[in-house]
Amino acid sequence: MSEIFSQRHLVQFYETDQMGIVHHSNYLRFFEEARVAWAHAHGILDYQKPESAARFAVLSSRVEHKKPAVFGDVLWTEVQGFLDGGRVRFEYQTWRGPQESRELVAQGETVHVAMTLDLKPTRPSKELLSLLRRN
Amino acid sequence: MSEIFSQRHLVQFYETDQMGIVHHSNYLRFFEEARVAWAHAHGILDYQKPESAARFAVLSSRVEHKKPAVFGDVLWTEVQGFLDGGRVRFEYQTWRGPQESRELVAQGETVHVAMTLDLKPTRPSKELLSLLRRN
Amino acid sequence: MSEIFSQRHLVQFYETDQMGIVHHSNYLRFFEEARVAWAHAHGILDYQKPESAARFAVLSSRVEHKKPAVFGDVLWTEVQGFLDGGRVRFEYQTWRGPQESRELVAQGETVHVAMTLDLKPTRPSKELLSLLRRN
Amino acid sequence: MSEIFSQRHLVQFYETDQMGIVHHSNYLRFFEEARVAWAHAHGILDYQKPESAARFAVLSSRVEHKKPAVFGDVLWTEVQGFLDGGRVRFEYQTWRGPQESRELVAQGETVHVAMTLDLKPTRPSKELLSLLRRN
Repeated sequence: MSEIFSQRHLVQFYETDQMGIVHHSNYLRFFEEARVAWAHAHGILDYQKPESAARFAVLSSRVEHKKPAVFGDVLWTEVQGFLDGGRVRFEYQTWRGPQESRELVAQGETVHVAMTLDLKPTRPSKELLSLLRRN
Repeated sequence: MSEIFSQRHLVQFYETDQMGIVHHSNYLRFFEEARVAWAHAHGILDYQKPESAARFAVLSSRVEHKKPAVFGDVLWTEVQGFLDGGRVRFEYQTWRGPQESRELVAQGETVHVAMTLDLKPTRPSKELLSLLRRN
Repeated sequence: MSEIFSQRHLVQFYETDQMGIVHHSNYLRFFEEARVAWAHAHGILDYQKPESAARFAVLSSRVEHKKPAVFGDVLWTEVQGFLDGGRVRFEYQTWRGPQESRELVAQGETVHVAMTLDLKPTRPSKELLSLLRRN
Repeated sequence: MSEIFSQRHLVQFYETDQMGIVHHSNYLRFFEEARVAWAHAHGILDYQKPESAARFAVLSSRVEHKKPAVFGDVLWTEVQGFLDGGRVRFEYQTWRGPQESRELVAQGETVHVAMTLDLKPTRPSKELLSLLRRN
């Protein structure tokens, strides 16, 4: 598994719905933000070569909602990657508030498979494998 | 459990991402469209009283992706509701193409709890219970 | 200019914000739905060749909001295309309610330029020109 | 008019479309992020009282696209507020790249009116007026 990486997100007005809370579909976007930031921080996602992100298909996702998040909340999503057969699994925990009194807002998981440029499943790159085997 | 209900969705350009396929976060929106249409068709969601929709929180979701969907695809999402303790669970299958040769694009589940106006968990309404016990 | 074309949209829960109304960014999406449906209905947009939609860049947009739209509203967006030098301009009116008592919810405009596959500006296709010169 | 305020946005994968660029509807969201951050920085928007943001309706918007933005771009949106009769107008310029060689990606405008809690137009608050008259 990889190290734990943490990514900040300030909840925007346009992410709320008429319940006055963050619409649940946005958590998959917060998870993606954290996963992409982790990959970029470790040099395995090159923004200048967008195919490096595109070549990574989502097979499944799961989200559990613990507390509603609201407009203006500062959320921190922790992400950790695991090698799972030929697949890559990420686990997420989205927290609100300062470290010492933080609350769990949501947690979840996404499972991915690396793809060739013509969208056939392939093995993760050496660099990715190395990161996932670090701990 | 309820009867199966099916809802059409034409994939929009704005639902695609740079992989050229529907961004995975949209499937939770397609599921919501189907769930809402089912509730409205059975008279348990009144658009004129938006609190009737708001009072139904999402506890968890799960999506499995079987085939990518693309711009212009006509998708049909089948939804079926189940009573699960005090919770309500919906199962979804999103299909593409004509009935006789349709392909499964995605399947998943969302779990909900009814809420009072001040966002405390409560029991599902009698009308909802009756629909979920129909079969 | 082209004929007027009208496209239906049922307002979804995920399109609302915490004001309890449709978030204003969605109107550009409703306009796109109408524009794409018009182009598809006239055979100048082929869903199976997604580059036919991609090769049409947005240069500018303008939206005026007349009435808020809410969850469950049935909106009809009328779109009409105009040739404007080498550019194509679409004008939109988004209405709510039955024809005889309909209310104007929003109106606006988008301006586009045709692009080659490598994203250089080019002239509109003959088929598009022919549609825009129909009236 | 107010001082110029600048807000950072890192372009996310979920903000791209199948043209491989940021979908044009997102610029209204980037503008909102900048406007909200400005209002919050000056103490006239209280995240804990969401009605302070909600009570500010969008009357119109306008966006001009100068360059496409892509996944991973760091964008800075400059926002400046103006008093315009009883209305408040914001002007935006969205830039990419370092200050000395930055490129203009988009520019635009939104016009707003303050609303009472029951959604009737009213005058801007004293605090907002004072900010808009600063320069």
